[in-house]
Formats: sequence, structure tokens, C-alpha cells
Amino acid sequence: MSHTSLSAVSVILVNTSHPGNIGSVARAMKTMGLMRLILVAPEQFPADQAYHLASGADDVLDQAQVVATFEEAVADKQWVFGASARSRSIPWPVVAPKACAEMIVQRLAQTPAQIALVFGREASGLTNEELMRCHYHVQIPSNPDYGVLNIAMAVQVISYEIWQMLQNQLALPEMAGGKQMPLMACRWDADLATSQELHYFVEHLTQLAVEWGFYDPENPKQIVARLTRLFLRAQPDKMELQLLRGLLAAKAKSS
Amino acid sequence: MSHTSLSAVSVILVNTSHPGNIGSVARAMKTMGLMRLILVAPEQFPADQAYHLASGADDVLDQAQVVATFEEAVADKQWVFGASARSRSIPWPVVAPKACAEMIVQRLAQTPAQIALVFGREASGLTNEELMRCHYHVQIPSNPDYGVLNIAMAVQVISYEIWQMLQNQLALPEMAGGKQMPLMACRWDADLATSQELHYFVEHLTQLAVEWGFYDPENPKQIVARLTRLFLRAQPDKMELQLLRGLLAAKAKSS
Repeated sequence: MSHTSLSAVSVILVNTSHPGNIGSVARAMKTMGLMRLILVAPEQFPADQAYHLASGADDVLDQAQVVATFEEAVADKQWVFGASARSRSIPWPVVAPKACAEMIVQRLAQTPAQIALVFGREASGLTNEELMRCHYHVQIPSNPDYGVLNIAMAVQVISYEIWQMLQNQLALPEMAGGKQMPLMACRWDADLATSQELHYFVEHLTQLAVEWGFYDPENPKQIVARLTRLFLRAQPDKMELQLLRGLLAAKAKSS
Repeated sequence: MSHTSLSAVSVILVNTSHPGNIGSVARAMKTMGLMRLILVAPEQFPADQAYHLASGADDVLDQAQVVATFEEAVADKQWVFGASARSRSIPWPVVAPKACAEMIVQRLAQTPAQIALVFGREASGLTNEELMRCHYHVQIPSNPDYGVLNIAMAVQVISYEIWQMLQNQLALPEMAGGKQMPLMACRWDADLATSQELHYFVEHLTQLAVEWGFYDPENPKQIVARLTRLFLRAQPDKMELQLLRGLLAAKAKSS
């Protein structure tokens, strides 16, 4: 694994209001070796203010991909981390930046995967629906009386942890006297499912659950959330997902 | 040690050009529980732009202390960490943010000490003279091709590590099943010398070294740097410094 493996990690900004923040995010990313920026319906972009604050990270802005919806941005991603300041009604796997970095660097060393770090709106963060599309929520430990990091600051802290972890990983062979340390090897025989494939699957499953009368009609949202959480946590690969789809199809036919 | 012990940690900004950066630093500090800001001859302060970007961390700006010189800012500090992007001509003890945080949190748990984190000018950082007043240089690991963090980003990363370390420290008793973990206890019988006391001492020593013909006249700066570095690393307390002064005085009389 080399430094360039970070090209599999994208930063996604959702509905950013201030172009200056987009520039600051680009700069923060580049200082930590991250170059792929995806902007979901930014209020103003391209914008002079963004380039002004990017201060030498123009290339990150030049290559930034602008898309219309959150769904589009995460569609082909296989592992999605969403920055979240608050705890949510339904408990979700939450990791600190360091753990997030460790997971990402280990994953990159094993199986190629498209990874996304998603950051929400300046004022309101990510919506519950968007957070439910994330495998993990990342929470930055902060002052309980004033925990509101600026969006570019949050990007800086999380990318910093990833960069650090990558350097530690790369430094391992040297620490062991030139001998390559064994990474936790677990090569998989199928690619991970993408965010979109998983989303469609859970939608289909939910629809069936409704048809089958299998949910609390008082609280339909919780069921979707819990199903989503379960499958995100399980991280099925494409083959497994096909298997699950086959099972549902068989069940549908048999009834 | 409690969260409030962070009141012994000051952030010092030297000759900041953009008031917006002062505001962003205030916000970054407060998210990580740091409240004491000292501004050395800022170009513009107070300023609307600073308050605009502080976004709820107005209290940090309201309480900020403005001083005319770097010397004034560090005078009463006992442990000074200076942010530095480059390596210097004479090797200085350099620590990463995590190590810096660990040292600070351990120190706070042992002996009360006034600690400063110093950040230089946006364009040029700290001068060599200023860096020589620092016990340690803090370097944030970053992309070798583009390692220039914005000043507020650097403050965010280092304060984040301090906050994290403090939380881990506070969490120790719980981890040990309610029993207080023994901190590395080493209560001292005298206060640490301040930055100013140490500076005067080294100045005096250098002057004597000149008088005594004890230095390479081709390279007078290196001698001062090396002496400074030695005594900063030794971290003498007030009593020890008095002893050293006494020795020098005795030497002067005897010759």
C-alpha cells in the first residue's frame, strides 16, 4: 500500500452554503494527501472565494465533481462514513476519528474499496435519511458545552488521523528492521456491494416487510432504520447481496 | 485533574495578519476546551471579521489578551511549545501533536505549570529567535508535497489531541473499575522557572561565554542556540536556576 492508495478516499460535502468553506476543505484535504472532492448541490461553485481559501489546493477544486443529489454522490461507494455531531434516536455504529482512520487504512491495505467521508450542511449537518446511508457515523470528541467544529476543521481532523495512520502503517516495515509486517490479510473473493445496491436492497426488503404486514405500523421509520443499520454493519459483498435478493424472490414466488 | 485544568494552557498567536484567522482560532480552541488566547501585535483586533468567524466563541475573543511583543507573551510561561512547519538548521526537540498532548496532560496532572502553544505568522511562521524560546517544536505530520496547514487548522489539530488525551486520562479511573489509576506522580519541591527567567539566565551565560572567550567567533549564533536548547530541555525549576546563577556569580568573583 502506498500513499497513492488514498485516491480511493473521497470527501463528499452536502449542500455547502459558503464557497469559502469549500476552499478551506480543499486545502485541509490536500495537506493530508486527500485529492478527491465531491460536491452535492453546493450553493455557489465554482467561486472565487473557494479558490482564494484553497490557497494552493486549486487542483483539488479543479478536479472536484459536482453532483445533484446525495444518492448520486454515494452510489458507487462501498464504505461510507458520515460526520455527525449529535447522537441520533436510533443508535448507529459511531466511531471516533482515530478508529475511522484505522479502519480505512486497514481496509485499503486489504481489499480495494471506494470509501467516502461525508460532511453535511454548515448549519444543520446531515439529515437522518442521509445518515442512514452511512455505514458508520464519525464523531469528533469535543467540548460538550461547545462542540460545533467548522466543517473544514472537521475535515482537517479526520484527514489528519487518516494521514497519520497511513504513515504509521507505512513505517511498520522499518520498525520491524526492514521486514514487512504481516497486515491482517483477508482477501475477499467478491467486491463489496455499493451504497446504491445496498440501498435498493433495503428498499425492496422494506417494501416486502410492508406487504407481509411485518412491521409496527405506529413506527414504520424505525424498522427501515434498523434494517438499514443491520445490512450496513454486515457489509455484504456483491455475491452475498445477490444471494439475499434470490432468497427474497424465492419467498415472493412461494407465497 | 479536571477539565478546568486546561485553563493553564494558553494559545499565543504572533503577528496574525487576518482577523478572520483569529476568529477561526478562537472557535477551534473552544471546541476543545481551550479558552485562553494571547495575541502578539495582531494587525487588526478587535475586528468584526474575527467575531464573525468565532461563531459563538465570542467569549474567547472578549477575554483575549493583546500584548506588544513575543517576549511579553511568553514571559510567565513555564513550558512553551512552538508550531513549526520546517526543520531548522540546529536540531531542536520536535514532537508530534499527540506526543505534545500527552506531555501537557501528564504535566497538568502532576505539577501546576503555565503552558503555551505558540503559532506564528500566516505567511512565515515563527522566527528562529522565537523558536529558540520554545522548549519543543510541534510538527503536524502532513503531505510532503503540500504541508501548509492554515493557522486555525493547526490550532484545531493540536487542541483536538490535547482534548482527546485529557478525556482518555479522565476515563482511566473508570476503566480500572472505579479505582483511581496511579498517575506518574512526581510532585516537585519548587516551581518550574518561567520562560523569562530562563531567557535572562541564558543571556547572562552567553555574555559570560563571550567575556571568557569561550565560543567560536565565526559562529556565535550556534552557541546561543545550543545553550538555549540545553537549558530548555533540562527544564530547571526556580531553585535550580538560582543555584546556577549563584555558581556563575561565584565564578565571576573568583576570576
